[in-house]
Amino acid sequence: MTTTQRSALGARELALRERANGVIPGGMYGHMNVQAFSSVHPQFMVSGDGCRVTDADGREYLDLMCGWGPVILGHRHSAVTSAIVDQLGRGDCLDGTSPVAVEFAELLVDTIPSADWAMFVKNGSDATTTCVTLARAATGRAKVMVAHGAYHGAVPWCALRGAGIVAQDQANLVHYEYNDLASAHWAADEAGADLAAIVVCPMRHDIRCEQELVDPEFARGLRALADRTGAVLILDDVRCGFRLDLGGSWEPLGVRPDLSAWSKAIANGQALGAITGTEALRDAARSIYITGSFWYAAVPFAAGLATLTELRKGEALPRIAAAGTRLREGLASQAASHGLEIRQTGPVQMPLLSFAGDVEFRTSTAWAEAAAVRGVYLHPWHNWFLSAAHTDDDIDAILQRTDDAFTAVSRS
Amino acid sequence: MTTTQRSALGARELALRERANGVIPGGMYGHMNVQAFSSVHPQFMVSGDGCRVTDADGREYLDLMCGWGPVILGHRHSAVTSAIVDQLGRGDCLDGTSPVAVEFAELLVDTIPSADWAMFVKNGSDATTTCVTLARAATGRAKVMVAHGAYHGAVPWCALRGAGIVAQDQANLVHYEYNDLASAHWAADEAGADLAAIVVCPMRHDIRCEQELVDPEFARGLRALADRTGAVLILDDVRCGFRLDLGGSWEPLGVRPDLSAWSKAIANGQALGAITGTEALRDAARSIYITGSFWYAAVPFAAGLATLTELRKGEALPRIAAAGTRLREGLASQAASHGLEIRQTGPVQMPLLSFAGDVEFRTSTAWAEAAAVRGVYLHPWHNWFLSAAHTDDDIDAILQRTDDAFTAVSRS
Repeated sequence: MTTTQRSALGARELALRERANGVIPGGMYGHMNVQAFSSVHPQFMVSGDGCRVTDADGREYLDLMCGWGPVILGHRHSAVTSAIVDQLGRGDCLDGTSPVAVEFAELLVDTIPSADWAMFVKNGSDATTTCVTLARAATGRAKVMVAHGAYHGAVPWCALRGAGIVAQDQANLVHYEYNDLASAHWAADEAGADLAAIVVCPMRHDIRCEQELVDPEFARGLRALADRTGAVLILDDVRCGFRLDLGGSWEPLGVRPDLSAWSKAIANGQALGAITGTEALRDAARSIYITGSFWYAAVPFAAGLATLTELRKGEALPRIAAAGTRLREGLASQAASHGLEIRQTGPVQMPLLSFAGDVEFRTSTAWAEAAAVRGVYLHPWHNWFLSAAHTDDDIDAILQRTDDAFTAVSRS
Repeated sequence: MTTTQRSALGARELALRERANGVIPGGMYGHMNVQAFSSVHPQFMVSGDGCRVTDADGREYLDLMCGWGPVILGHRHSAVTSAIVDQLGRGDCLDGTSPVAVEFAELLVDTIPSADWAMFVKNGSDATTTCVTLARAATGRAKVMVAHGAYHGAVPWCALRGAGIVAQDQANLVHYEYNDLASAHWAADEAGADLAAIVVCPMRHDIRCEQELVDPEFARGLRALADRTGAVLILDDVRCGFRLDLGGSWEPLGVRPDLSAWSKAIANGQALGAITGTEALRDAARSIYITGSFWYAAVPFAAGLATLTELRKGEALPRIAAAGTRLREGLASQAASHGLEIRQTGPVQMPLLSFAGDVEFRTSTAWAEAAAVRGVYLHPWHNWFLSAAHTDDDIDAILQRTDDAFTAVSRS
């Protein structure tokens, strides 16, 4: 198979961008605002199937973003789609909770060793925000430790950037450095007796940075710090959750959080998030008041149940890891053959490739754009995601195109 | 047709409650925690069809809550379900935005006179929070006026109750009394040059209170106050939106907000919210950073497009108003015939019935419970919602049962 380079943006893409500019400020917003990272990736997509997505001009891409995380089994996975359509045939947004919510809570508690109960929301930031509220309710304290630069949602209490955030929104945050236990101890000392929670991601996955796996000693140290201070240890597993380990991303380390925030891959793309917690925090969870118009709707729970049931069969996560390993090894070999010095960081299931000395992402952007015009959708400075739909053949097809992209980059 | 009283809770309901107690703190949470308002309403529901919902024990209810607002066309409306299934067959959570998001933004801008652009979120509270952030970005100010007791979401900045809320969360709120323009002027004076926004609901729909329509002079006065102070007027149309007037709930008054928050009925039950605003605020909207994992997914936009297209045909809203009027007149006549002094407040499309002197809601709870066991689902102290699926015959069937409920209440 040969791959040919396409011209930058298609006619339908350009027409849609013009229409969007009229009715959406800036044409798009948030992490899917494509103009923030590329001049050739399409803003608009019309369909997906397995590990392939298709843009408005009918161009197909081998997908290394998986809807930026949610799609863990592949686009339009048959068991998930069947569950959605089946539940739609009965009802979705009813006057009471659907029994499938209870089934799903039971399955989460059975799957996640640190979980004695679950509550459900719509956004990842709903989950992280609720964890903080719950920690404050449990401890009667206000201060919250977060890692410098860590993303826990684009809501005022934890927003990293953007206009409209006021000082009081983040007045109770105390910062530490990821994987630096001494800095965490200093932060805890700064918070003193008012420390309610320590919030931490399973790995360092800040955008525009190389990824960094957690140092197991750091994870154990945060657990001990929480125990010593009486603070609640909150694992923000929104981005990593269900892809690295079904029981929670720190389960392989044997470090269990008091509360976990989940979303993204929980229902293969349907809007759902969850908070799980320990028995000790059940009463505090009862004491807070959280709710949302669509939080009790049946369809996302049906999708979550189908997704987690499929994941528990045990084949998907090894498949994702194998695909990620094949991709990592292939990219390493290609870069070496082109004489390019690259770094691949983070777990293989959520990879990121960066170029040595490329501090402004010019090379990674050129390479990602070269991959995009050759039909591989990946990002220059946000981690990618693998899914269980990525076969060895798919990875090989991706690698054939990334090799051409390396050629293009090494020429320029 | 005769109606017979059922025993309180079914066997499947009781079994589900026991299971839920094991894995969900308190068995349920938020506004759908049925134990907060009734001992006989089912917590769990399995299906819906038009204006009917069915609980886990197969008991059917004529539905006066409509999923607590979202269901405006009726459960499982064929055009909306078709749009959902059709979109699912192409893709949902892709790597880019679906073109249907642009179509929907265009339709909103075409439908809502105060809207020059739209942005999309998942929760009603995402929409109200974004409006506040945007107003702060536009003005460079921090203070936000809200009506005492008004509900704008269960998130820390505006939470009315619950543990875990800290002082800094609400440090920038300044309160006024709904429909009291003098109090709004005092609040604006208190905020002074730091007033960023005036947030207001289209009517007073605080829970555990009779509803109160807006005084047009109050609405015009808030508009003038915002203009005079340079604050942003934010209409929280999350609960009322699309049911009272497609162009916005204050459009009949000729009072146009700078920003509006929408959710609930926007997609007949699919998780979607929107912020719409004026041209003057477009650059500020560009300057803020908001995002969410599922905000770009195609299916809810397809549902929104189908819902708004159906509503724009012009038959649904008059049908909802006619059903509400028939219900209100019937209930008034029944109460009078039973010698019961009731009050019916709010617009007919979103009614609430209360009993004179019933300050602790004992009578309204007894009446709502008597209605529930007779197969009508309504609430003792939260407003109800009518849908376009309510025919005259359905309203008459509801009234037959509410008459029995009045009999039960007047006997006790």
